[in-house]
Amino acid sequence: MTTTVKSYAAFDPESSLGAWDLERRVTEPKDVAIEIRYCGVCHSDLHSAKNHWGSTHYPLVPGHEIVGVVSEVGSDVTKHKVGDWVAVGCLVDSCGQCGSCHEGEEQYCERGSIGTYGAVGRDGKPTQGGYSQKIVVVEDFVLRVPEGLDPASAAPLLCAGITSYSPLNFHKVGPGMKVGVIGLGGLGHMALKFAVAMGAEVTMFTTSESKREEAARLGAHHVVLSTERAEMKATFNTLDLIVDTVPVPHDLGGYIRCLRRNGNLVMTGPIGLQEPPLNNGLLMMGRKAVSGSAIGGIAETQQMLDFCAESGVTCEVEMIAMDYINEAYERLEKNDVHYRFVIDMATL
Amino acid sequence: MTTTVKSYAAFDPESSLGAWDLERRVTEPKDVAIEIRYCGVCHSDLHSAKNHWGSTHYPLVPGHEIVGVVSEVGSDVTKHKVGDWVAVGCLVDSCGQCGSCHEGEEQYCERGSIGTYGAVGRDGKPTQGGYSQKIVVVEDFVLRVPEGLDPASAAPLLCAGITSYSPLNFHKVGPGMKVGVIGLGGLGHMALKFAVAMGAEVTMFTTSESKREEAARLGAHHVVLSTERAEMKATFNTLDLIVDTVPVPHDLGGYIRCLRRNGNLVMTGPIGLQEPPLNNGLLMMGRKAVSGSAIGGIAETQQMLDFCAESGVTCEVEMIAMDYINEAYERLEKNDVHYRFVIDMATL
Repeated sequence: MTTTVKSYAAFDPESSLGAWDLERRVTEPKDVAIEIRYCGVCHSDLHSAKNHWGSTHYPLVPGHEIVGVVSEVGSDVTKHKVGDWVAVGCLVDSCGQCGSCHEGEEQYCERGSIGTYGAVGRDGKPTQGGYSQKIVVVEDFVLRVPEGLDPASAAPLLCAGITSYSPLNFHKVGPGMKVGVIGLGGLGHMALKFAVAMGAEVTMFTTSESKREEAARLGAHHVVLSTERAEMKATFNTLDLIVDTVPVPHDLGGYIRCLRRNGNLVMTGPIGLQEPPLNNGLLMMGRKAVSGSAIGGIAETQQMLDFCAESGVTCEVEMIAMDYINEAYERLEKNDVHYRFVIDMATL
Repeated sequence: MTTTVKSYAAFDPESSLGAWDLERRVTEPKDVAIEIRYCGVCHSDLHSAKNHWGSTHYPLVPGHEIVGVVSEVGSDVTKHKVGDWVAVGCLVDSCGQCGSCHEGEEQYCERGSIGTYGAVGRDGKPTQGGYSQKIVVVEDFVLRVPEGLDPASAAPLLCAGITSYSPLNFHKVGPGMKVGVIGLGGLGHMALKFAVAMGAEVTMFTTSESKREEAARLGAHHVVLSTERAEMKATFNTLDLIVDTVPVPHDLGGYIRCLRRNGNLVMTGPIGLQEPPLNNGLLMMGRKAVSGSAIGGIAETQQMLDFCAESGVTCEVEMIAMDYINEAYERLEKNDVHYRFVIDMATL
């Protein structure tokens, strides 16, 4: 049993996205049906729509930064009720049985968590994302949008937010720590705001002189042009943690040198096939690490949303209408966005 | 003021090592003079003697796995007395002032620790190593050889031992943990023995079918031929920690896949200029890390020696005479040693 809802889909790698009638499952006992109000535009949406990763099945409805209002709940749902502001991020399901799931790290589900779009759900059907009127998700993967958090600017927290929050949280960032952030984009500006809100002394690394002032405006205590050897050198051996948000090949050596003893460079942007070379001598001289981190678990995502409401951290967004999405993708490819497009789903 | 002692030195990159009259400083108030009885032969000795790293000044007396007996102490020495069995490892000095030194991690001294040979001492003179009758070292860098530890087989503990012990100790290896070790050589066989003695379940990775039995003899619970895809695959997502002792370029991807969520691949062998590519997507899917580790601090080295005496862990050694060193280097280059040459310095 399905219901038909309006959506915007990609139909092939070349064409524009356009309107599509999407079939959603009806609300089952554990399900929450959500009327989508806002959906953030993640770079992954573009990669998937254009089949950059070679695994896209069409039609595809992108979108995994979803905020909306509960319109219906299944008979067994206890966590959410009709009328609640709720959110859905990159995951809509996981096995619930493995060690990762038991420890609230569904993103690392050992049997493979189920992505909000472009994956295959338990019912064997493709999952479809948030560029749509409505989504139906099991209650355990639905987050509460706390009071005091603006629903529109909260949307990108569901991917850009949690992806940058999780490594800071895992490494217990707080006062007295020195944190670096590489790349002032969707993820980077959130990592910067979070680290500042957590009380750390934050260094923003950028390749653009023009972003120096902007980084300071967003709270950076120091801004380092990574192309300037002298600025980098002055930062060597000073940082406890660096969150690297750059999803394209880049040299790691200079940043590893900026870490203190026992420091960790956490990569949050998948680089793909052009793997950067690793100088292990730099890691050895100070017991340094290069690690990775992917989004966050469900409980941690809720914790992040609550932290945002308490601390006033929000994403910087540019609201767009649904039919602007193709132009938005063009601008995204040119990094022409500060810092996240959010679709007003009333325009669908 | 100096005293002349017998030694064996490298005089240029091509020639054989041969006898050389070495000048040692006289014993100053904080110094311990040691009559060297045994000196291990580390691969770094060969690299330095042959100028593989391009930084060797000749003549060079290699050797940083030194065990001997105290022959004289300076007036301010309190930690050691004449007749004690003592040891000296890779370091003979550090600044003593920086954060690393204060925390007992002299190997990561922020002003640069001073190597036992091939470095420049505080007096501005080149440091010279253990292929010699005698060495004079400030007392803080002299270790006690505990009762019950065979002095000859203890020598390689000072480099191969501490280098493999330190990452296991830092990551608190113990019962319930699953540890992998890559490469059954001087470092690898020590990492294997230590991890077993610490109570971990240990997987030995090797590229040689012939080493399977040997690894089991040394205590490995599992042996995986890293060239066999099926064996590697059966190990994916199982290990908490891997100690990688291979100092030449090798693919990291398969080993990263063998790590569990939050697992750490610690590299202890400097690879040099042919840096291996890093697939950061593999790190992201499980918050995995690749890190480095270099020898260990002085207090940690003492702890390691004490651990060896208590647990019965020793290095497997082949005793050689001093004039065998050139043949030993040839065999070292062919990996024809089980697992460490130790020079009986009575033969000098």
